[in-house]
This record gives sequence, C-alpha cells and structure tokens, in this order.
Amino acid sequence: MSSTAAAPDQPPRPVRFGILGCASIARKLARAMLLAPGAAVAAVGSRSEEKARLFAADTGLDAARLHGTYEALLDDPDVDVVYIPLPTSLHVRWATAAAARGKHILLEKPTALCAADLDAILAACDAAGVQFMDSTMWMHHPRTTKMREIVDAKDAIGDIKVINSVFSFRADEDFLQNDIRVKPDLDALGALGDVGWYCIRAILWAVDYELPKTVIALREPVKNRAGVLLACGATLYWADGKTATFSCSFLTNLTMDITLVGTNGTLHVTDFVIPYEEKSAEFSVASKSNFAKLHIGWDPLPSKHVVTTELPQEALMVEELARLVKNIRDAGGKPEGKWPAITRKTQVVLDAVKTSIDKGSDPVEIAS
Amino acid sequence: MSSTAAAPDQPPRPVRFGILGCASIARKLARAMLLAPGAAVAAVGSRSEEKARLFAADTGLDAARLHGTYEALLDDPDVDVVYIPLPTSLHVRWATAAAARGKHILLEKPTALCAADLDAILAACDAAGVQFMDSTMWMHHPRTTKMREIVDAKDAIGDIKVINSVFSFRADEDFLQNDIRVKPDLDALGALGDVGWYCIRAILWAVDYELPKTVIALREPVKNRAGVLLACGATLYWADGKTATFSCSFLTNLTMDITLVGTNGTLHVTDFVIPYEEKSAEFSVASKSNFAKLHIGWDPLPSKHVVTTELPQEALMVEELARLVKNIRDAGGKPEGKWPAITRKTQVVLDAVKTSIDKGSDPVEIAS
Repeated sequence: MSSTAAAPDQPPRPVRFGILGCASIARKLARAMLLAPGAAVAAVGSRSEEKARLFAADTGLDAARLHGTYEALLDDPDVDVVYIPLPTSLHVRWATAAAARGKHILLEKPTALCAADLDAILAACDAAGVQFMDSTMWMHHPRTTKMREIVDAKDAIGDIKVINSVFSFRADEDFLQNDIRVKPDLDALGALGDVGWYCIRAILWAVDYELPKTVIALREPVKNRAGVLLACGATLYWADGKTATFSCSFLTNLTMDITLVGTNGTLHVTDFVIPYEEKSAEFSVASKSNFAKLHIGWDPLPSKHVVTTELPQEALMVEELARLVKNIRDAGGKPEGKWPAITRKTQVVLDAVKTSIDKGSDPVEIAS
Repeated sequence: MSSTAAAPDQPPRPVRFGILGCASIARKLARAMLLAPGAAVAAVGSRSEEKARLFAADTGLDAARLHGTYEALLDDPDVDVVYIPLPTSLHVRWATAAAARGKHILLEKPTALCAADLDAILAACDAAGVQFMDSTMWMHHPRTTKMREIVDAKDAIGDIKVINSVFSFRADEDFLQNDIRVKPDLDALGALGDVGWYCIRAILWAVDYELPKTVIALREPVKNRAGVLLACGATLYWADGKTATFSCSFLTNLTMDITLVGTNGTLHVTDFVIPYEEKSAEFSVASKSNFAKLHIGWDPLPSKHVVTTELPQEALMVEELARLVKNIRDAGGKPEGKWPAITRKTQVVLDAVKTSIDKGSDPVEIAS
C-alpha cells in the first residue's frame, strides 16, 4: 500500500510497533500486527520484563525486544508507533510522553476520561508531528466501507432520520468485581466508555460526523457501588430533526446493532463491532420498500450484502496506520487529520452523555 | 377449532361478519374472512348501496347482503360481528351502536382517540356481553406465538432490559395531502395512532403487558400544518429498570423492527407488523452469546427461526375471533377478557405519549 519505493538494494522497512502494557486486548492487536502487511512488532513494554517475556512468548512475538518499564519502551529507537491499551486514567500521561518522544500513537478506546484530556494528547501529537489513531477496529472493515458507499450514494437510504445502536455484553461476576472497566480509578467511564464508545462512533459515522445539537441521557442508568456505569444510554438530536438513540451495557447479552432509517431505505447490521465471523460479514438494506398488493407482504424485499475480507479488521487498521506512518517517516508526509478529528467528536459526545447522566438526564447542548 | 358440535343434521353455522365501511384495509379483511375457517361475510354496509356493491364485487363477496347505511348493517339480524374500519373519530359512535345491538366487534386501530373514548366502547361491549377485539393482525401470526414461547421460557432471553421498536413507511404526496390519517377531524393521532400503535403494542407484548411507569416523548415530533403527527417517538421506563424506545413515522422507508435485549439473549425481527412473505416468517435469537477466542468473532452464533403458516395472520385473527364468538353464540360462553385488556393498555400508553408530546416531552406518569 505504500507509495514510497524502497532503495533498490534493501527491502521496504516495516513500520515497527511497540506494545505498551500487556492487556488482554493487546493479544488481539499483537496478532493483527503480525498479520498486517507493512507492520512489525519491535518491542513489548510492561511493568516487569518477565511479564513482557510471557506476553511475547504467548503471542508469537519472538523477535520483539522486551522492556521492563514503560519508559524504556518509549525510549526504544526501533519503535515507530506505540500501541497503548492501558487503563484510560493512564492515557494522558503515556500518550503525551510517547508523542514527546516522536512516537506515533495507536490509542485504545475510550481515548480519554474527557475531551479536555484528549485535547492534551492531540496537542502533544500535533506538536510532535506524529500520527494519532484510536483503536476502533470496525472502522477499518471493508463492510464499513461498503455501508459508507451506500449511505453516501443517498439513493438507497436517502436522508437518515432515525438511528438506533446497541452494544452490550453480559459480563460475568469476576468482570463485575475485578475488571479495570468497573474501577473508578482506572476506567471511570465504565460501560459508557467501553461499549458506549462504539455506539456513539456508529451514530457519528452514520451522519458523516455531524455533531448533534442536544444530548439527553436515558433515565436510570445502572451504576456499581463505586459509581461506575454498568448500563446507560442516550438520545441525540440534530438541528435538522435527525434522532439517534443508543443503549450500552455490561449486563445484557452480546448485542451489536446499528439500525439506520432513512427517507428511502433502512440499513440493519447486528454485529457491527466484531463480525460474527472473521472473513465474511453481512448487512441488509431495504430500499424503497412498499407494501405488496393488499398489504400482504413487502415489495421489493430487503437485500442482504455480504462482504468478505482476507485480513481481519484489526489487521486492516494496523495496515492503514502503518501506511500513514510510513508516509510520514519515509516520505516527509503529514499526519492524516481525519482520525484525530473523529476521535475528538466521539469524545465530545461521550462527554455530553456523561454530563447529562450526572445531571439526572438534563439536556446538554453541544456547541457546533 | 370450535368445541361446540353442530346438530347432526346440519353443518356448523359460521360466524357471520358485517363490514362497516369500505376502507382500503377492509379489502384485506374481506379476503381474510373468506379464508378463515368458521367465518363468513354476511353483509357490507356503506354510505351508499352502490359503494357497497362495488366493494363486494371487487372483493369476491358475492353472497353478502348490501346496505346503503351503517345503521342498516347494524340492524341486519344475520350479522354476528361488525368489523369497523372507519376513521378513528367515528369509532365511539359506531362501536357503541353495534354493541348496543348485540353485535360482537372487530375494531381497527387506533381503537379510539383516547382511553376515555375506548372505555365507552368497552363499557358498551361489557353491558351487551359481546366480544371485543382490535384488529392488530400480527398478534395472531404463529411467529408471534413462537416468539412468546421463547420469551416466556426465560432461559434463552432472560430478563428483558432494552426494547427498541420502529414502524415507519414512506407516504407519498397524495397520502400526505389526502389520507384520513393526516386529517385532524378523522384520525387526529396521525402516525402515532396508525404506526405508533404497533410499536406500543409490540413493547407491551414483549413485557407481557406490564404498563410502564413513565413515558417521555422524543423531542421535535414532526406535524403537518393541521397539527397531525407525521413522525414521533418515545422512551418508556418501568419501575424495574427496563427501558423501551420507539419511533414511528409516515416519512421514512418501510421499517418494522422489534429488538429485545435481555440478560441472556437478544431477539431481532424486522417485519413484525406484516411479514415479508405471507406463508413464512423469520426472527433471530442470539442466546448466551460470547466472544470467540481473542474476540475475533461470536460463539455461539445467533440462530434463525422460520415459522410457516398456511393461513395469513389476518385470517388467523378472524378465525380466532369467530371461535370466541361461536362459543358465546352457540355455547353460552363469556367474552374473552384478554383482548379488550391489551387494547386498553395500548391505548393508555398511547395517551401518555400524546400527552408528553403535547407538553413538550415532559415525563408522564402512568398509574399502575
């Protein structure tokens, strides 16, 4: 994918990732970095070299350098990009430190506890001229591209008026007691940050990232004893009358829905975050649907779209980030502003939902 | 289906329907009455005998008696049940008149402009000892029975926490100018009464008709110049934390969704009001869904359920009503109270949504 030719006497130099912390999700990303063309894993950093060693051995990263501190990984000159799957409360510290050392950044979601924190990270990236991307994998699936094309073409869906999104999974007792995502000092946004992030992103994606005007949280969010959200939702309103509602939860069965209802058509996808299967993903579109004669059926029927992919979406994400970094590193290119821009909009809406929750479902206006 | 044996020397006497008014939807019901075992069409009444004649000829009701006034149909001694597809504003007058003449009633939805009006109809039915049923056809599809079994069994879905429902169709310019459903003097509830009725019924069905505690309309409903709703929605809250959101509209593509998200499973149906095809209908259930290893897919995958039916849902509705009426007429049975009870709950919630809309989306409490 790179447009930069390597010198004739050496193979193209891959973009080298450093993994900062051995979170569970990092295993999936390690596999993605091994699969993605143009990428390699240069190093793993953990709070002890032993933990880094175990992680590298488990994930097949035999060639990776091991670091026993996060600082050492950031100082590793062989690392181009730092992948940060740390608890959200540590993001500002380590993402700004990485940017200050000239590292490009792949940051797990939620990217920050609030938009002001994210702004500190993005400012550090700007100052250093490094690429920023959040790790919202489904953005990179070719199904998402196909859905985007259909939505953008306008004819099949028309003007979107109603959006529904749900992302939930049923956490077990161990998760609800011990996972970082239920701890106020680690991931204080709880289910809103973890699963709600995807719903908000899906909604913004559907409207081509136009911010809503008003956000009103659903009433009676569920919190744990420490006040961390386990289930919540919100309705978002746009100036032109579009409306979106989402629900996110750690307490209900695995569900990953986006429903878009437009003037001309309706799009359904029920596994948007992680497709049911890795190499093939579906969605359905009902377009210009009418009642059959006597209203005894539909005419035409909805159509099913199947999109196949050789590489999983997370490897496509890594490949895309490697392409952008290579362009900066090897060809004097500039960071792509699209990725931090949509991260920031997601975080701004997330902030508004949190504020509305904290105010007992009062409406929160978002400045345009 | 009848448990009453006919006298040995004569065939069982069908339950005879009279059709009061020649609305478009009545054509579908006429067909259903011809298809339904145990039912027959005795008469058609319209504002002129000529209209009744044209309707009967068009719908194959060759044996039906024709009446040039509504009163004449109600006075027809051969009519057991009156089907009333008149504009909602006429329901109280004609439904109470029919009941007063001892006729059983199949009433189109929305059944009334408000719960107080419906109560007048139900009181008349009670006083006369006649059966009341609203014409919400999907209730009678065997798919609905199958979904009910799965929900009631609790294991597959668990406790339902989130419900989403959408029903919309894209009305053409002629409809938006001339249909009775956009006229304040005929069907003042507009889209809320016509399509929102089904969403509210679906939500109540999902929770086994437990009334919500609080109803809050979505903001910025769309109205026509006469103030009739063209698009709106609401969120419903129950005391135990269940939440439901629905959207209904005349302005977006044909969409008929119910999504139930429970602690154990998720149910999706995307054609709940009128199945895509008449003889076979589907829904999907994801139950105890987990992430596959490394979160690269789902395990187990959702399962698709297919339910076939020889008779369309509207004929099954007519058959069920005929069975109830036959039991009263021929065997001294009592009216089945389930049907008016769920009609009333639907209307009570619809009232609350309308009140919330009229109050700018203020919360409206429903007395339990």
